[in-house]
Amino acid sequence: MSMIDPAATLEITGFDWVPPFAVGLVRDLRPRWACEEADLPYRERLISATDRPEWYYAEQPWGQVPVIRDGDVRVFESGATLLHIAEASGHLLPASGQPRADALSWMLAAFNSVEPLLNQWVDATLFSAKEDWAKLRRPSLEQAIATRLDPVSRIVAEREWLAGDFSLADIAMATVLRPLRNGPMLTRHEALAAYVARAEARPAFRQALADQVAHYEANAPQAEGV
Amino acid sequence: MSMIDPAATLEITGFDWVPPFAVGLVRDLRPRWACEEADLPYRERLISATDRPEWYYAEQPWGQVPVIRDGDVRVFESGATLLHIAEASGHLLPASGQPRADALSWMLAAFNSVEPLLNQWVDATLFSAKEDWAKLRRPSLEQAIATRLDPVSRIVAEREWLAGDFSLADIAMATVLRPLRNGPMLTRHEALAAYVARAEARPAFRQALADQVAHYEANAPQAEGV
Repeated sequence: MSMIDPAATLEITGFDWVPPFAVGLVRDLRPRWACEEADLPYRERLISATDRPEWYYAEQPWGQVPVIRDGDVRVFESGATLLHIAEASGHLLPASGQPRADALSWMLAAFNSVEPLLNQWVDATLFSAKEDWAKLRRPSLEQAIATRLDPVSRIVAEREWLAGDFSLADIAMATVLRPLRNGPMLTRHEALAAYVARAEARPAFRQALADQVAHYEANAPQAEGV
Repeated sequence: MSMIDPAATLEITGFDWVPPFAVGLVRDLRPRWACEEADLPYRERLISATDRPEWYYAEQPWGQVPVIRDGDVRVFESGATLLHIAEASGHLLPASGQPRADALSWMLAAFNSVEPLLNQWVDATLFSAKEDWAKLRRPSLEQAIATRLDPVSRIVAEREWLAGDFSLADIAMATVLRPLRNGPMLTRHEALAAYVARAEARPAFRQALADQVAHYEANAPQAEGV
């Protein structure tokens, strides 16, 4: 059941439309997914990705999504939105001990040790694919990513989720890894590919993704027939 | 006063020695600094950076520092160690409201939106400086960093610290920015350079850095005369 409720206290900012390559990868998927897991209602605020409103930069330094607002409190950076939703709902983050430490360690690992390399790869293979530096950089970058993913794959071969029960660390790591889905860099780490598939099979993920993508379909530019 | 106490419950893992280019930039500086700010005693555990012990990979997936141990609880990723120290001490992270949201948002911004670009720059100008891709990549990377730093510089032109009082967000952001110190990419953002200098002037920072560097001096390889 969708947690979207126009009367909800919590608001998530997303985009009204994105080009096809970005569908499923926009970061407001993270707090949406967290709200679905935590049974926390939220309302939506949609802005243009292609013509970002000037006022939005006062809420988010770089004009990125997501921002969440909860009453008078504003939070940016998807990792911080996950922490806020966990604290507001009492779900997704164990209260103490090693499970809490594991959830926080692996969430930060996703955002600081894994995503930066994958973002370089997206840059080198998509946004800057035609640049000479990008072509030259790819082999060493793909090797660095493989080395970085090896221990994560070994961990999720042994455990269903990174911190015992499903937690905000899994929302972080699974969404960080999704740009690699269906590609050889993920599939050659079998356990990691299976982990991402487990995460994507969760009803909360499917609901959050469906709700996010519904707007893109409804707002698709008609002239280009995208 | 140094918070180092061999009988402390909290243990921080660092390196016994690092080459000169890394001095002052090793990430166990972050939890050391946090402990000094929070008056939280800690003991040290030093490992070799050049010959990392195999057992250490069971504590940290990629063999990096820091790891902290607090009784039975183990935490890795410097952002997670900052959260743990803040929760253990009751310092460095406001309890609620917009100050807490700002501290968490800016800490995550340091680790997910700023550090990844700066790490690419360190790679392109130091570790991979002789690679063709690195030479070709530098101009666009330096432009991307300037654009990323602009709004941070505007914020710290208006506020002494990112979240009102000094917080874990400032430990994160100042240490993330320090690889640029004394260089044109930082000095052309005057307010940001002044912010890093403010952070480095804090007695807690100076103590943490002195304690970290003392080991490197004591353990310097004698043959090379480094």
